[in-house]
Amino acid sequence: MPSKQRNVTSIALNLLDERGTYWLVDCGEGTQQQILNSPVKLGRTEKLFITHLHGDHLYGLPGLLTSRSYLGGDTPLTLYGPRGLKQFVETALEVSGAHLSYTLHLVELDEEGIIFEDESFLVETARLEHRIECFGFRIVEKDQPGKLLNEKLKELAVPPGPIYGQLKLGHTVQLEDGRTIHGKDFLGAPVPGRVVVILGDTRYCEGAKKLARGADVLVHEATFAMDKQELAYAFDHATSTDAARTAQEAGANVLIMTHLSSRYQGDSVNELLHQAQQIHGNSHLARDFWSFDIPRKV
Amino acid sequence: MPSKQRNVTSIALNLLDERGTYWLVDCGEGTQQQILNSPVKLGRTEKLFITHLHGDHLYGLPGLLTSRSYLGGDTPLTLYGPRGLKQFVETALEVSGAHLSYTLHLVELDEEGIIFEDESFLVETARLEHRIECFGFRIVEKDQPGKLLNEKLKELAVPPGPIYGQLKLGHTVQLEDGRTIHGKDFLGAPVPGRVVVILGDTRYCEGAKKLARGADVLVHEATFAMDKQELAYAFDHATSTDAARTAQEAGANVLIMTHLSSRYQGDSVNELLHQAQQIHGNSHLARDFWSFDIPRKV
Repeated sequence: MPSKQRNVTSIALNLLDERGTYWLVDCGEGTQQQILNSPVKLGRTEKLFITHLHGDHLYGLPGLLTSRSYLGGDTPLTLYGPRGLKQFVETALEVSGAHLSYTLHLVELDEEGIIFEDESFLVETARLEHRIECFGFRIVEKDQPGKLLNEKLKELAVPPGPIYGQLKLGHTVQLEDGRTIHGKDFLGAPVPGRVVVILGDTRYCEGAKKLARGADVLVHEATFAMDKQELAYAFDHATSTDAARTAQEAGANVLIMTHLSSRYQGDSVNELLHQAQQIHGNSHLARDFWSFDIPRKV
Repeated sequence: MPSKQRNVTSIALNLLDERGTYWLVDCGEGTQQQILNSPVKLGRTEKLFITHLHGDHLYGLPGLLTSRSYLGGDTPLTLYGPRGLKQFVETALEVSGAHLSYTLHLVELDEEGIIFEDESFLVETARLEHRIECFGFRIVEKDQPGKLLNEKLKELAVPPGPIYGQLKLGHTVQLEDGRTIHGKDFLGAPVPGRVVVILGDTRYCEGAKKLARGADVLVHEATFAMDKQELAYAFDHATSTDAARTAQEAGANVLIMTHLSSRYQGDSVNELLHQAQQIHGNSHLARDFWSFDIPRKV
């Protein structure tokens, strides 16, 4: 449930600074209103992943989709989520007579595995353990080739021109003066991609650990503090220590906890943070509008 | 669309101070969050009227209905609205696996006229002119009989007892000493009921005027300022002057304008207010969280 301090769930990913586009994971009621108070541009949202169809992750979707039209969103949007998502979206749009100004691709998830791949990203999904079908998403930013070392080429008096493009791709070229130049000798270190794993609601489970293997950032729910372990298990939710164990055992670098029960308000949220940090030092609690800059591995 | 300053539509009526219950009209996305910052108690909401199924009046409904369960709402809730409402609510609750802790009565409106009546209230509905089927609601608080004038009875040495109850109902009773007492002679002036008319989106139309006849308060949309009259008509919306004309011609006492386009922000909303006041002096602009105390006629 929303509280005065915390709204229900939605997470924005801005992995493509240069494109200025966003991916969203989950869309609880009021997400479009929260976006108004954030740097996220709804019209520049490309993909939206729904982990599961509980209302606190879903009910903001009809309003967000229709407002994206009003805000001049004319680029396609791809929506991924469990079976039933299509029926919900179509019914909501149909009864309210809404017509979107853009193409909506809706992908209902049947199988675990890779659901998207292009030259920059790969998205893998796996099932978690929750009351209804629920997915986690592993978003892998691919390594990017290193920058072309222009200064080094100038030192060798390699004349600028189209061959620089060839060298940047790592190709071998022959200069007019007969010299052979190998692109790989003039490229900086590759820029390592980052791995962000965002899980839907789940109790502690093997699927979560597998999906989170070696992640730079794991976003994990922590509905309860550790003294509510039995309650958490009974309701298919996680405690702060469950989240931290998963991060630790998966070898994830940073843990970000979300989805705290509305019973934890004010300073009482720190209890959950401290419990997690006992197990996994690099643990954080997400707050509404908080952002986390994911460092690249050096 | 919501803006930073104004959320989409919902109006709470607190006509029954002593019962502490609420009726809501419309339920745009984020209504449950707004309620958290208002005196309204979601668990004590009895009736919810949906004027029409456009998202800005509807999309907060699934979240509000399910949160009412979590907040311990165990009394029945009756929901009134146009055809299609049932399909929307049932689909949203079903795909998200939601089970309400209370009985939800859902009434789809087919015909104009009286849709509810008890000893205190009467609710009448009529169709308006909008892109999709859209209703207005005339909520009539019935006159309450005057208070029993105990002092006057004591002066005449009428002995207290069950006959006071009879006299309060206006009945005639015979005392043991043979005197005949007429209840109506010992009742104060009746407490006049109030009439509140809340319209869904509409352009200027006869149906609105008819429903608003002699209302104490008319809540009317004013999407546009008067210079956008053609735009308003084309999109089946009203201007500030349309709203004021309707109030004036219907003989409504107070006009409250809502549903301003998000293009009007800050001081620019006063333009709409001034335009209405030229036609109907007793005009007001609703703001989020604003409340209006409806005076009783003397």
